[in-house]
Amino acid sequence: MMKPSIPQGTRDFGSDVVRKRRYIFDTIRSVFEVCGFQPLETPAMENLETLMGKYGDEGDKLIFKILNNGLDNPTKHDRAQEGLKKVLAGKSSDLLTERALRYDLTIPFARYVAMNHAQLSFPFKRYQMQPVWRADRPQRGRYREFYQCDADIVGSNALINEVDFVHIYHAVFQRLGIPGYELRINSRKILAALAEITGGKEKLTAITIAIDKLDKIGLDKVKLELEERGILPHHIGIIETYLQIDGSNEVKLAQIHQLMQASEIGKKGIEEITYVLDQSASPSSPPNVSIDFTLARGLDYYTGIIFEAKAPQQIKMGSIGGGGRYDDLTGFFGVPNIPGVGISFGVDRIFDVMEELQLFPETIEGGTQVLFFNMGEQESKAAYGYVHALRRAGIATELFHESVKKEKQFKYAEKKGIPVVAIIDGEHMTNRSCSVKNIRTGVERTLPFDLLVSTLTKDLATSPLSSGLKN
Amino acid sequence: MMKPSIPQGTRDFGSDVVRKRRYIFDTIRSVFEVCGFQPLETPAMENLETLMGKYGDEGDKLIFKILNNGLDNPTKHDRAQEGLKKVLAGKSSDLLTERALRYDLTIPFARYVAMNHAQLSFPFKRYQMQPVWRADRPQRGRYREFYQCDADIVGSNALINEVDFVHIYHAVFQRLGIPGYELRINSRKILAALAEITGGKEKLTAITIAIDKLDKIGLDKVKLELEERGILPHHIGIIETYLQIDGSNEVKLAQIHQLMQASEIGKKGIEEITYVLDQSASPSSPPNVSIDFTLARGLDYYTGIIFEAKAPQQIKMGSIGGGGRYDDLTGFFGVPNIPGVGISFGVDRIFDVMEELQLFPETIEGGTQVLFFNMGEQESKAAYGYVHALRRAGIATELFHESVKKEKQFKYAEKKGIPVVAIIDGEHMTNRSCSVKNIRTGVERTLPFDLLVSTLTKDLATSPLSSGLKN
Repeated sequence: MMKPSIPQGTRDFGSDVVRKRRYIFDTIRSVFEVCGFQPLETPAMENLETLMGKYGDEGDKLIFKILNNGLDNPTKHDRAQEGLKKVLAGKSSDLLTERALRYDLTIPFARYVAMNHAQLSFPFKRYQMQPVWRADRPQRGRYREFYQCDADIVGSNALINEVDFVHIYHAVFQRLGIPGYELRINSRKILAALAEITGGKEKLTAITIAIDKLDKIGLDKVKLELEERGILPHHIGIIETYLQIDGSNEVKLAQIHQLMQASEIGKKGIEEITYVLDQSASPSSPPNVSIDFTLARGLDYYTGIIFEAKAPQQIKMGSIGGGGRYDDLTGFFGVPNIPGVGISFGVDRIFDVMEELQLFPETIEGGTQVLFFNMGEQESKAAYGYVHALRRAGIATELFHESVKKEKQFKYAEKKGIPVVAIIDGEHMTNRSCSVKNIRTGVERTLPFDLLVSTLTKDLATSPLSSGLKN
Repeated sequence: MMKPSIPQGTRDFGSDVVRKRRYIFDTIRSVFEVCGFQPLETPAMENLETLMGKYGDEGDKLIFKILNNGLDNPTKHDRAQEGLKKVLAGKSSDLLTERALRYDLTIPFARYVAMNHAQLSFPFKRYQMQPVWRADRPQRGRYREFYQCDADIVGSNALINEVDFVHIYHAVFQRLGIPGYELRINSRKILAALAEITGGKEKLTAITIAIDKLDKIGLDKVKLELEERGILPHHIGIIETYLQIDGSNEVKLAQIHQLMQASEIGKKGIEEITYVLDQSASPSSPPNVSIDFTLARGLDYYTGIIFEAKAPQQIKMGSIGGGGRYDDLTGFFGVPNIPGVGISFGVDRIFDVMEELQLFPETIEGGTQVLFFNMGEQESKAAYGYVHALRRAGIATELFHESVKKEKQFKYAEKKGIPVVAIIDGEHMTNRSCSVKNIRTGVERTLPFDLLVSTLTKDLATSPLSSGLKN
């Protein structure tokens, strides 16, 4: 007999975790919705050709491909054989596989916009919260199935969109009660300017890759890598000066201005960062935005402002969100000139941060609130009427499934963390009353049938236990 | 340049459909929760061996298998070659694929219970609402990716659980406002008794398969099929009598009693149906349950009461839900003797029924409620403060992304169905006022800055447009 297990890098979520994750999703969704974003859902499977070639060579290797159906069918031998030959020759084969699992939400969104652009009204603001799959080596905090929560605005070059995203990050982290988060901001234009003044445009990728590693490997190793990538010593000096820019946002802007005054694209980048900072300043609730010129966001397709949200410093967690502006979302799919800007929330990491800081409100606990004991067939029938009435009033209620010793029924309530037990036995039937015990407080009372529902509804509706269950 | 498309049998869901589907999910979830069920989520991928052999030969063929990763890697040639040989030899190969996509929610649930039974408290009541994937030939109303919504109670033989499920069906359809749904009920024990008296136990499968086709092929062809399957003519006569049982529930019970009085298992089945009908009778809100002895529920693993929920008769749709009792959920996974009962809602079909009968409430429309026009940089900055304030009050609000002609901004509001536009231009800045127009009613007014947020919040909160967005 097989011992059951689940694939490496995947997870089951029990009720407690589902409820907490739902709280995060609901919070993010409510902010997206109130800011005018519309939901979109795309299929888990995409055509292989939609995904391949979009994530770089490394990304392509991590795409989960789905075996074509009917492969095991003997009449399909030839097809399968042909498919395998192609695979063995190192070519991806549409005979063995022509579908794959979603690797992120951006490419499916681009595919959707390209397919539907004639019907959409631009700027098009969509959000999407769905799982993605990556065949990455599983490790602590890295899963093969995980959710992404994205919001994008496409069809607009206006920087007001970036400002909106600063506020969205702020609103989400504020509503989740995550203190001390930090939103870092930079511009790819400034990185482009840095490349211009340290060896030319063609060095942009090399410089970006090296800078992106700063957090992990430190300045000395970044310098070494720049040297290996053919950057000249005095250019490395400029990059070092750049990476060491520090201080308040104002001080940083002054320093970068000095470094980049000769570069048109550099000045443009500085102007954009200044605009976003100015516009998002709010006297009542200032978002915690700081310029970080070392922010590079890997090799993504970003071309303008880039963001990274960092977890509170006391937690070694790093990025809990990120995003940026891109010039051409749908060019891959034959629809050019749709620029946009988008952000993403890292729900798994946000979950870990909130667990570690114990930020989940008790009110999302959920679960059954009242258990009626089963004291026999007649008694159960009487109790069942009150079970229904309480459920209609939004109170999660159960009737124990069998008439057994009270101890056993009590134990069930305790194990499930049900706070209130209600007993209607033969004597209660005669008196038309019910014995009600609050397990947490130990308080026990007898309530007449007439007042049972109204009393319990009032008690439980005003306790923190009930919210989230009503409705 | 490739023309983008999505795989056959899959769908993109735009905002309108996402919101309507979410309304159905939320309604079902609220009923599950209030009845004491706990949420569970399992991974999209399961180990292939968890799924294979659980759905019959036909089912096995419809499982989407995931190609092992690293197959395209040249160093893995030998492994791949070995894998293909096995595939070509007609053997499933764990070298080519060892993971597959979830085919239903029951087997992953069984796998979960088997893995965690020592930690769970029984009876264990879980619900699960996730997509499943089947390589079925796509056709109208049949998709390769679709959601299932299941609730199960395991670890209890008590019929009170079946009664609870009757009420759950009733509560869900009542909350969704689906009039004229019908819940049909039968027992596999009665079908077993029918086999006993018409040729013996070993005919149960043949008889079940034939009866299951009654709706599609009609009585004459069912009789023909029974004949082909070796049922004797006088036994076919009994089956015909059985299938023609008609009338009220009471009349049907009397007739079946007459037919099955010699069968112990038959009497047990009748007793159970009688109990469930009696216990679920409610004077205030009687669930619409009718006995249907022709109900068979295919070749599933059911052993007791079976359910099928039918769409309102005026809609040719058939089953919108089903379920039943099983004896041994986790035996496959080495943990015997966990009986249970479960039901499922067919969300795609419920969606179609509700669309056809126009049952979705207008309040779930969602979308942006107020658009502030962009009248220049200073004006926008002033407007943006009110955008924030309205958002904090739960009103979905946008600021147009660029300062262009009013006509263009107005058109955006119209296309997106935004009911209220707000304009703050230079003159308004001086007067500290804002012009507010309701596009639907045509009413236009000027509101002082001080009253803008409170007035709009009050107006929109009391209109049906707002609910679902406040949170």
